[in-house]
Amino acid sequence: MKMVPLGDRVIVRLLEQEDKKKGGIIIPDTAKERPQEGEVVAVGKGRRTNSGDRIEPEVKTGDRVLFAKYAGNEIEIESTKYLVMKEDEILAIL
Amino acid sequence: MKMVPLGDRVIVRLLEQEDKKKGGIIIPDTAKERPQEGEVVAVGKGRRTNSGDRIEPEVKTGDRVLFAKYAGNEIEIESTKYLVMKEDEILAIL
Amino acid sequence: MKMVPLGDRVIVRLLEQEDKKKGGIIIPDTAKERPQEGEVVAVGKGRRTNSGDRIEPEVKTGDRVLFAKYAGNEIEIESTKYLVMKEDEILAIL
Amino acid sequence: MKMVPLGDRVIVRLLEQEDKKKGGIIIPDTAKERPQEGEVVAVGKGRRTNSGDRIEPEVKTGDRVLFAKYAGNEIEIESTKYLVMKEDEILAIL
Amino acid sequence: MKMVPLGDRVIVRLLEQEDKKKGGIIIPDTAKERPQEGEVVAVGKGRRTNSGDRIEPEVKTGDRVLFAKYAGNEIEIESTKYLVMKEDEILAIL
Amino acid sequence: MKMVPLGDRVIVRLLEQEDKKKGGIIIPDTAKERPQEGEVVAVGKGRRTNSGDRIEPEVKTGDRVLFAKYAGNEIEIESTKYLVMKEDEILAIL
Amino acid sequence: MKMVPLGDRVIVRLLEQEDKKKGGIIIPDTAKERPQEGEVVAVGKGRRTNSGDRIEPEVKTGDRVLFAKYAGNEIEIESTKYLVMKEDEILAIL
Repeated sequence: MKMVPLGDRVIVRLLEQEDKKKGGIIIPDTAKERPQEGEVVAVGKGRRTNSGDRIEPEVKTGDRVLFAKYAGNEIEIESTKYLVMKEDEILAIL
Repeated sequence: MKMVPLGDRVIVRLLEQEDKKKGGIIIPDTAKERPQEGEVVAVGKGRRTNSGDRIEPEVKTGDRVLFAKYAGNEIEIESTKYLVMKEDEILAIL
Repeated sequence: MKMVPLGDRVIVRLLEQEDKKKGGIIIPDTAKERPQEGEVVAVGKGRRTNSGDRIEPEVKTGDRVLFAKYAGNEIEIESTKYLVMKEDEILAIL
Repeated sequence: MKMVPLGDRVIVRLLEQEDKKKGGIIIPDTAKERPQEGEVVAVGKGRRTNSGDRIEPEVKTGDRVLFAKYAGNEIEIESTKYLVMKEDEILAIL
Repeated sequence: MKMVPLGDRVIVRLLEQEDKKKGGIIIPDTAKERPQEGEVVAVGKGRRTNSGDRIEPEVKTGDRVLFAKYAGNEIEIESTKYLVMKEDEILAIL
Repeated sequence: MKMVPLGDRVIVRLLEQEDKKKGGIIIPDTAKERPQEGEVVAVGKGRRTNSGDRIEPEVKTGDRVLFAKYAGNEIEIESTKYLVMKEDEILAIL
Repeated sequence: MKMVPLGDRVIVRLLEQEDKKKGGIIIPDTAKERPQEGEVVAVGKGRRTNSGDRIEPEVKTGDRVLFAKYAGNEIEIESTKYLVMKEDEILAIL
């Protein structure tokens, strides 16, 4: 992907139901704020500290990640859904 | 568990009623926000300070912990319930 | 008590009416947010500064303390009520 | 007073109407949030900076002070009303 | 004035209509939050930085100042109205 | 202008419709929060950092600036409208 | 463009529908907060850290960027729509 997220943002491809079957994680419908799965496709340079230094991101392209349902801004490129989110909105690397 | 929580997050397996009998802690129904028990199954690398250093987490895998009722995001793997939460949402190690 | 509160949290045993008679402090019913008394039974390692250092707690086990009414999370162990709260929620040592 | 307020808290004895006559300050009834007068009876060790140092309190025991009406938590010891408040809630030393 | 405001607070004597005529500033009635004029009569020692140092106040006793309408706490001494406010609530020195 | 704005505040003379024709910027009526134009007539000494140092303002007297509609506090001197605002409320120098 | 945005602000020319066809990004109508595309036409000197240093902006004039729908303040110069926004409101460089 040629898009470059700014700062501590990452771009995540939303994983559809068929992709998730492999993983085995089931997110219960009863959970008030269901986490979702995705694949990291682009990573920003990282957050700037107050002294101007970069904090290196913890995720990398290709990581399969879990994130809260309403994380990020949704975009669509050639029929594929992506989310641009802050790295801190990612809960865990699967 | 192969999931790796990000930053200062931890993954906690929710303890069911039968597990809690051993411990002897009873959380009153009248409490407006009842704490819950769980077992830490994965720990992130820790929070980043403004200078970019990591603060080492205080809990470790295997710790039995107490946390506020609405802490974290609920997920389910092979019929077991887990919560992904910030370490600071953990009240105490039992 | 074998419970270890996290960070700047402390565990306080709620003092019942008969315990408070000794002390002589009366908290008026008219006060909009009545403080309560308790005894500190466990103290965390203390808050982490931005540089990662610990700030040593000001209270210690055995201290009799005053705290705001809705401070902390209530738990019950063998019929005794405890509160897990942030040290900063303690108003004063009696 | 043997009570020791925590951190940057102070304990203030609420001055009744007869005490205030001496001072000559009249707080208008029309003021939307009327300040009150009191006498400092106990002072905490002071606020902790991020580096863990104490900031020495500006008020001392015996100071007569002005504070916003809803400052602090009200307690009563042997029929006398006191307020436990943060030093920053004190507006001025009279 | 013998009152000493705490920290970065100042005490300002509210200027009445007749005083303001001299200055020539008219604050329109249509302004949603009309600024007011006053004279600084007492200045605190200044705000404490995180390292515990004082930041010297920018206003001094005798300065004629402009401040937002709902700034500060109103008090009255011998029929004169004063406001105890944070220095940052002062908009400008006239 | 003899008024001296405090800290990181500036005083801006509101530009009327006839003044703006020269510039050529049209702010659409449909914009939910229409920016406005003005001329900087006074600049404060700048914001204080936590270490007590001043951050030098970016605008100077005479600059023509764009700012958000509800920025600042409105005052009127000899039939001319001015706004006292924080420098950060200025969007751009024209 | 002769306008100079202040601090960490940038000015972005809003890309119309015909411009976006080239890029191939489709933002779904169903997204609750649809990102928009634009071209950076002016960049501020960057955010000031607490020590007064500038943090160099990550975008540069000419960059095609993605930003959240309600980012920035809208202005119009010679029938062209621009947005003045904080650099942090930019999600990604396309």
